[in-house]
Amino acid sequence: MSPAPTRHHTWLTQPHHDGSGRYVSNQSPRLGDRVDVLVRVPLEAEVDAVHVRTSPDGEATFTVAKKVRTSANDDWWRATLTCHNPVTSYRFLLTGGPTKYAWLNGTGVHRRDVPDASDFRLVAHDSPPPEWALGSVVYQIFPDRFARSKGADQHETPDWAIPADWSDPVDISPKGVAHQLYGGDLDGITEHLDHLESLGVDVVYMTPFFPARSNHRYDASCFEQIDPLLGGAPALRRLTKAAHERGMKVMGDFTTNHTGNAHEWFLAAAGPGGKSKPERDYYIWEDGTYVAWLGVPSLPKLNHLNAALRRRIFEHPQGVVRKWLGRAGGLDGWRVDVANMTGRWRDTDVNHCVARQMRDVLGRVAPDALLVGEHFHDYTVDLPGDGWHGIMNYAGFCKPAWTWLRQEPKDPRFLGAPVPLPLLDAGSVVETMRDFTSRIAWQSLVHSFNLVGSHDVPRIRTLVGPGSVEAAAGLLFTFPSMPMLTYGDEIGMEGTFGEDGRRPMPWDENDWDATTLAIYRGLIAARQRSVALRRGGLRWVHAEGDAVVYLRETLDEVALVHVARAAHEPVVLDPRHLAGIESGASEYGPRPKIGKRAVTLSATGPGVSIWTWRPTDDGARHVRRRGRRREGATA
Amino acid sequence: MSPAPTRHHTWLTQPHHDGSGRYVSNQSPRLGDRVDVLVRVPLEAEVDAVHVRTSPDGEATFTVAKKVRTSANDDWWRATLTCHNPVTSYRFLLTGGPTKYAWLNGTGVHRRDVPDASDFRLVAHDSPPPEWALGSVVYQIFPDRFARSKGADQHETPDWAIPADWSDPVDISPKGVAHQLYGGDLDGITEHLDHLESLGVDVVYMTPFFPARSNHRYDASCFEQIDPLLGGAPALRRLTKAAHERGMKVMGDFTTNHTGNAHEWFLAAAGPGGKSKPERDYYIWEDGTYVAWLGVPSLPKLNHLNAALRRRIFEHPQGVVRKWLGRAGGLDGWRVDVANMTGRWRDTDVNHCVARQMRDVLGRVAPDALLVGEHFHDYTVDLPGDGWHGIMNYAGFCKPAWTWLRQEPKDPRFLGAPVPLPLLDAGSVVETMRDFTSRIAWQSLVHSFNLVGSHDVPRIRTLVGPGSVEAAAGLLFTFPSMPMLTYGDEIGMEGTFGEDGRRPMPWDENDWDATTLAIYRGLIAARQRSVALRRGGLRWVHAEGDAVVYLRETLDEVALVHVARAAHEPVVLDPRHLAGIESGASEYGPRPKIGKRAVTLSATGPGVSIWTWRPTDDGARHVRRRGRRREGATA
Repeated sequence: MSPAPTRHHTWLTQPHHDGSGRYVSNQSPRLGDRVDVLVRVPLEAEVDAVHVRTSPDGEATFTVAKKVRTSANDDWWRATLTCHNPVTSYRFLLTGGPTKYAWLNGTGVHRRDVPDASDFRLVAHDSPPPEWALGSVVYQIFPDRFARSKGADQHETPDWAIPADWSDPVDISPKGVAHQLYGGDLDGITEHLDHLESLGVDVVYMTPFFPARSNHRYDASCFEQIDPLLGGAPALRRLTKAAHERGMKVMGDFTTNHTGNAHEWFLAAAGPGGKSKPERDYYIWEDGTYVAWLGVPSLPKLNHLNAALRRRIFEHPQGVVRKWLGRAGGLDGWRVDVANMTGRWRDTDVNHCVARQMRDVLGRVAPDALLVGEHFHDYTVDLPGDGWHGIMNYAGFCKPAWTWLRQEPKDPRFLGAPVPLPLLDAGSVVETMRDFTSRIAWQSLVHSFNLVGSHDVPRIRTLVGPGSVEAAAGLLFTFPSMPMLTYGDEIGMEGTFGEDGRRPMPWDENDWDATTLAIYRGLIAARQRSVALRRGGLRWVHAEGDAVVYLRETLDEVALVHVARAAHEPVVLDPRHLAGIESGASEYGPRPKIGKRAVTLSATGPGVSIWTWRPTDDGARHVRRRGRRREGATA
Repeated sequence: MSPAPTRHHTWLTQPHHDGSGRYVSNQSPRLGDRVDVLVRVPLEAEVDAVHVRTSPDGEATFTVAKKVRTSANDDWWRATLTCHNPVTSYRFLLTGGPTKYAWLNGTGVHRRDVPDASDFRLVAHDSPPPEWALGSVVYQIFPDRFARSKGADQHETPDWAIPADWSDPVDISPKGVAHQLYGGDLDGITEHLDHLESLGVDVVYMTPFFPARSNHRYDASCFEQIDPLLGGAPALRRLTKAAHERGMKVMGDFTTNHTGNAHEWFLAAAGPGGKSKPERDYYIWEDGTYVAWLGVPSLPKLNHLNAALRRRIFEHPQGVVRKWLGRAGGLDGWRVDVANMTGRWRDTDVNHCVARQMRDVLGRVAPDALLVGEHFHDYTVDLPGDGWHGIMNYAGFCKPAWTWLRQEPKDPRFLGAPVPLPLLDAGSVVETMRDFTSRIAWQSLVHSFNLVGSHDVPRIRTLVGPGSVEAAAGLLFTFPSMPMLTYGDEIGMEGTFGEDGRRPMPWDENDWDATTLAIYRGLIAARQRSVALRRGGLRWVHAEGDAVVYLRETLDEVALVHVARAAHEPVVLDPRHLAGIESGASEYGPRPKIGKRAVTLSATGPGVSIWTWRPTDDGARHVRRRGRRREGATA
């Protein structure tokens, strides 16, 4: 007889709720709707009563939850909440037994009072995120560097540009960094949609395509044209049409925060007689000088207190937001640059007004469009759910993932940080992830772009080393979110910082890292096959040192994900909490060892494994799926 | 030779900063001002570098801190921040040595990334809190129950009232609870200002004094008169004049959320032809019915979307806010009832607009007035610093204090909670206090009313038992805040819930608990003598089980406070971190045993001790006190 296996610390014996469809009956409720919320309470927790606390109109109140089912290992409690306000924040009060008094919120179980920031949230704002976005995989393209189309050579080199051959190294000198022009274009993207389709990509997101005086084009000189160097508006039409035919979506990139200093508005405002022109007040002037993004003179900051500017940008049918969107323009959404600074200057802060207005316009003219804001640090206060549908999740995903996976000997810095990124254990990293992601609605979380890299930061391969790319991609493609990769990550492109990583995509497959490509294809394919990975909740199981383990759960499928950054002691779980696991199948990586008394997860690493099964503990079926029953209506 | 004393876990070896004048050079900066912030880093922490992170205009940035002094046990680092926005949130990044990478924010030291909610804050909004408020002791009076003046009997009993003799028990029947009228009045308060002065009270705050149809008067029938039953406007003038002559301030109570259903506006709105009257839209109507506070028909909710209402309340010289305030009306500030619900209904939320407008009016017409909002739960998101100067601190002080001090056998419930208040250890309780108080600016914290009871909740004596009143009052009068007691707490009044506690104040001193009165007098006197208790920072030292220990620090004085809910193992501290302690004096309670190698705090309990001294470690003197040097100005 062998001794009983050592079980690791897990959260499997803790009560759990998340905002996913497994626990919440309506993912996009409207104001006044009644919504069932369900909580899973393992029998070990010995809970006698469950109440749900909400704060309608700002006053705390409690709803009694009812025990609707007891399965082999869990009690399931249900309460019905009313979306009396656009945001209904809620948390569970668990009492009785040894638990006595505990709150369950988005960071877990707390045996003392805690603030509301990590409460769960039902969001009933108008213009919810479009259906297609949930779970989609996003591919970021920097148009100058992705691909030159066959017709690309016709364009002349503009006066600001330093032309480069596709095989030239990236020029990171102060002069070259923004002006080296490789000549990639939109038709180049269209010609390579095969590659994206074979990778399993759902959404193509391009950094700006407006005329500008730099290779990054964040210094637009006009919002009402597409840069002729990229093929102009006809090329965008060809691209969106071709993508749509393949079932892909296309998103653009708009700088609400600033224009270029060669923008037609700025030339009017700053030129002769500018002081009396309406465009003058589109910008912010102090002592006769314009305010610029972080003081960079080529990027004058827009003044969103000016109603005419906001009409021109957001409301006008030929303005930037509407012109390129939906049926008219072809785009399926906007990523908003510098969303965190937009509308903020000294004692002015109309950031949320800008976000809400843009969301409102989308809802009216292109209700199937997605709106995602760029945000490098704490996005939680900027994402109340009525503006951006989601954000680029640097703070709650990218940076924590980096601090877990970065290579020890290197000296990576996160975006302006004065000290190197630390190397931390899984426990700390997961705490940080939960701290951030619990502070936004589930709806906002799953419509945010998770990422482990972008055109603004080091390439993930350079940061973690080739051996850990799989672990990074494993986290990326198995979390609730819209995972975003940057063109070339999938073939092993490198770069020690943002601009260095903007290398031209090699199209000779001999230059590709086939192992990396297989990892990306494999993980994206697993995600596309598994409804749990695309749409499931997130239940943390284990996070210590070199390993994290979590469940993605829908009613019909559970995925057990295990990501290791190094070899570690095997993680041993109690199979009673994983009902049905023995009937599962491997989606990726090594199989767990499933015994009657223990589920043992591989001790090798770095690596990723995904195991999926149909759950036989179907407590969540006791969520009553309702239609539009409203507050005040009879049952 | 005796063995070395066992030292308890303390935070004395951890880096520290708070928003007080000991660590921040300007407590009320203006936009554009440059402010020094100082951080104390014990040598044990082995920190090599300190950076301060701020987020001007929404983008994170770092400022290098400079080591300005090394004392026997601490390094002192200083950085200069610019109040570029009305709120400058900041945190310290400590690196090097075994620390490697740690953030210091309002909840302490974190060795991983955390959201910004607990960052420190400089607040440069207009109309900052008045100078007199800092550290003041507030005495809450329920006018019907405090004292009948000699002339009180002249008034007739109104039709809604059930008259009571001063010696009658409180009627807590559904009919009696709001209608039993004892006949206390404003002149009664004036006649007893001696009692308040002898207690050491700085501010008299009265629950409403407007005409109404209840003893609590939260159902005002008019805002432009003072209830004749209370003596009318002349009595208010007499009270404010007499209080001011004694150097006391007087605050009123205004329900921005609702009026009574006998209010002149509501009678106009709901009466014949009401639909066409301007007052109709002062209220919220749904399907022909008015919306009322928590559905209570006598309290129709005001509609703050109506600009005429807001002008009438806030802007009009004869409107409620201005009429009774400042030179014209005599009051020194407003406490705002149901501040957390004001302006919130379904998809309307103008709560912050209401708070900002009221603050703005105060700033214009009575810049020396204080504005404090009632808030029963998580006030942190409702207190960004531009509206209410402070709140009633139930969530961050009262409820945590209760959960530490409540008597085991009783069954107290906090305001509508469906389960009894838990009994928790000091560690948990202090974590909760820090969670809440770290999320608001220091300026907001010190202008909030801390309390352990009010007219809405059980009397503290009933909740904790006579033996623990001293501990409760000890916490109350030694924290950074404006401590508020409720009339009669100081003489041992009881009450198992809010209305039960609204008993008439006995004026025969034989009915007073002399021990309790000595405790209140002693603690308030200690506070009035000690600048550290009134204005100092807050540095936590120890919190475990039955004891909490903390420091209140100014440049010139340190107070060491020890509060015990029961006898406990002695708390032993390292005197090296308490430079100068041996030269101190006892302000209250037992003296610590001060040796060369250990400071030992009494093991008896429940009880309170306060020891003050002049610090000999004067690192904070290295804050440069600046005038109004602004952003962009030369040094």
